[in-house]
Amino acid sequence: MAAEVITIGSEILAGHTCESNFAVIAAAMAREGVKLERHTVVPDERGALAEELRRALERSEIVIATGGLGATPDDITRRSVATVLNRKLVYRDELLAEIRAKLRARDTAASPTIETMALLPGGATPLANSVGLAPGFLIRTEKALLFALPGVPEEMSAMLEQQVLPVLREAGHAGRSVSETLHLAGISESVLAEQITPLLAEGVRAAYLPVPGRVDLRLSAAGDEKGRRHLQETITRLQPRLGPRLYGAGAVTLEEAVLQQLRQRHLTLAAAESLTGGLVGGALVRVPGASDAFLGDIVAYSNAAKQRLLGVPEETLRRYGAVSAPVAIAMAAGARRALGASVGIATTGIAGPSGGGGEKPVGLVFFGLSDAAGSRAFRYLFAGGRRLIQDRSVTVACDLLRLHLIGRLDLVARHEEKLVGPGDPRFDAEEEEGGWRGE
Amino acid sequence: MAAEVITIGSEILAGHTCESNFAVIAAAMAREGVKLERHTVVPDERGALAEELRRALERSEIVIATGGLGATPDDITRRSVATVLNRKLVYRDELLAEIRAKLRARDTAASPTIETMALLPGGATPLANSVGLAPGFLIRTEKALLFALPGVPEEMSAMLEQQVLPVLREAGHAGRSVSETLHLAGISESVLAEQITPLLAEGVRAAYLPVPGRVDLRLSAAGDEKGRRHLQETITRLQPRLGPRLYGAGAVTLEEAVLQQLRQRHLTLAAAESLTGGLVGGALVRVPGASDAFLGDIVAYSNAAKQRLLGVPEETLRRYGAVSAPVAIAMAAGARRALGASVGIATTGIAGPSGGGGEKPVGLVFFGLSDAAGSRAFRYLFAGGRRLIQDRSVTVACDLLRLHLIGRLDLVARHEEKLVGPGDPRFDAEEEEGGWRGE
Repeated sequence: MAAEVITIGSEILAGHTCESNFAVIAAAMAREGVKLERHTVVPDERGALAEELRRALERSEIVIATGGLGATPDDITRRSVATVLNRKLVYRDELLAEIRAKLRARDTAASPTIETMALLPGGATPLANSVGLAPGFLIRTEKALLFALPGVPEEMSAMLEQQVLPVLREAGHAGRSVSETLHLAGISESVLAEQITPLLAEGVRAAYLPVPGRVDLRLSAAGDEKGRRHLQETITRLQPRLGPRLYGAGAVTLEEAVLQQLRQRHLTLAAAESLTGGLVGGALVRVPGASDAFLGDIVAYSNAAKQRLLGVPEETLRRYGAVSAPVAIAMAAGARRALGASVGIATTGIAGPSGGGGEKPVGLVFFGLSDAAGSRAFRYLFAGGRRLIQDRSVTVACDLLRLHLIGRLDLVARHEEKLVGPGDPRFDAEEEEGGWRGE
Repeated sequence: MAAEVITIGSEILAGHTCESNFAVIAAAMAREGVKLERHTVVPDERGALAEELRRALERSEIVIATGGLGATPDDITRRSVATVLNRKLVYRDELLAEIRAKLRARDTAASPTIETMALLPGGATPLANSVGLAPGFLIRTEKALLFALPGVPEEMSAMLEQQVLPVLREAGHAGRSVSETLHLAGISESVLAEQITPLLAEGVRAAYLPVPGRVDLRLSAAGDEKGRRHLQETITRLQPRLGPRLYGAGAVTLEEAVLQQLRQRHLTLAAAESLTGGLVGGALVRVPGASDAFLGDIVAYSNAAKQRLLGVPEETLRRYGAVSAPVAIAMAAGARRALGASVGIATTGIAGPSGGGGEKPVGLVFFGLSDAAGSRAFRYLFAGGRRLIQDRSVTVACDLLRLHLIGRLDLVARHEEKLVGPGDPRFDAEEEEGGWRGE
């Protein structure tokens, strides 16, 4: 079943607006097993739209157009569809009544311009707009289903879920495949592909979405009984193989996984950040209810602040520098102490573009992890610019926490910085409550 | 000059990857005055790509293709271009040598597969990849310029700026219009449009890109002497009218504007965050060199942390609740004190989805601002979900700082919470060093 999307919007081609509708449609189609074969953005010009519609209706069985349904002269979808399909535009009384009622509810006067929204090509089925004013429509041609949806993202999304997907399912076009997304951290796309390819059951396809430091693995299969069984078998076979690299399935994020692990264990978290300057905390608080387990975050750039707020000893800063394993550990322990949390996580590093050099290049980041049992530090060297280094640091901070909580820090042992123990005079002055693991 | 973009990527159509390259290309073309007339996303299938390339080369004078330049069997751009233009693929020795050198520098072995990146259609001009491995290429047909760029966003952006734009400018295709972007905060798109439309000089066009809490206004005109003059006249006329709502021009961000104002005045900043949990700090540290002026951030969710780390009096928390003007002020003053900064900014509010009700609904946010002269609080009520409320809070926090630094907080006086002064017994216990402004 070939499907395609046409976005109508000069403002997108002119670089004024980011097209966000397509990603929403693509995700819904993937979920429903509809294969999208093309996406085209055309300007608000009847000639260009008509040309593209004509071609789309020849080559695809499902065509979803978004935009161009408003009431300004730019809004050309109704007219272009009528032209291409050689139909007249007719005022639909029931739509006119609905539009007037919605306007009254907003205390806005109706106008002949706004009422052009009630014009539909002959034979079209209206699609209700539960969010905004302009109705969409559906036309069934001999070969294809053509959906015209509004361009406003909230209106488009609602109409897609409430009107388009039910029609596709009823026509047997949607719901014909099943899929599940597995989320992994600390593994590269290519290593993952090597590991799992031999384990996929017949007819199960794997797709990889790499994000800095993470991979989302989508497994899909036909929507029939056999496909469902094979998908389930594959997941059951993969889970032990992926082990602790797998942090969740479905819509879960790494931050949600961390917060859930904390809650399950009745633990609380505090962070101390330097190069990430609040980004770790910011990622965690995107999750509703984060404050249950995440007590707070201390961003301390200057050495003075590291000493005063986090209790990092001056001697440690002087001897090892702010970007070092001992400072990362002292920061994590300090955040834990200052906020009275069970676990502390810390980041200190060089995000660049300046500030790096010699033994401490741009991209060098130390992570500190501290709980009642002791503290550990991990050393990473990231490639990329400032933003990418910060993003990867946030991901690694969350993943280190997760691995710590499930007792699998052995997976990142190669990153661990071996430090001397508490009996060593270099550290005795630091009043670290937990012991130092290491040599 | 018709131009179009073709994105090659099944992973985009499958909903696995968000297409982000197009927006970058569209912005660059808009800046250079090149009119984009189409964007098409095609799957990694030679037939589909060849069909689209053929049509694009007929209808457009500039065709920019992204993706499909890697070394896996999915990477089909070189072959499809060769087919459509009826040219052979040839190994380019200079590219082979470059690829091998880059691999050596990464301690990676070359392989026949990777070396297919050195294959180009006959007559193509290689485009250097300053970020990654795969070179791009340019082919000049009789009617059109065809650019093939990598799909990796960082590689694509660098090649666009360093290789594509210079060719377009030299060919007289780019640089034929001039534009300038003005950045405004605290004003809506419609109010802005009303204010400036009468002030636009002949031939100057205005486009609006609204972002939560901000508007980017792009003014453009023809690239000739008259167009340049009219654009400059318009900007000169608009600046006094827009006044302090205007925080910058060109590529500047609101966070950069804040940090620059701080540096100019030799001031330092500390933040205290509750509902934004590090997002204000995270936004600031995206700016290189932020740590010059931004000393740190204390994220304190619990009342205990607000008391301990920020010195918010228990009495204030009990009497007014954590989401209140007095607490916002105490947090700002506390952050300033704890980090030894000149200025303190604080956020406390209800991001939702739960936790709101009665007099304190979801979306209610108080901002505290504190410096040696005293402290003030501002009350906002934001619509939208958790993410939007947090994003708007970050923008308002930065804009309040900016207005404070330029002495124009009068613009947001309607949000100011009037508080009693230091002589009032309700506040005397708080040991606030500055005075309270207000009644």
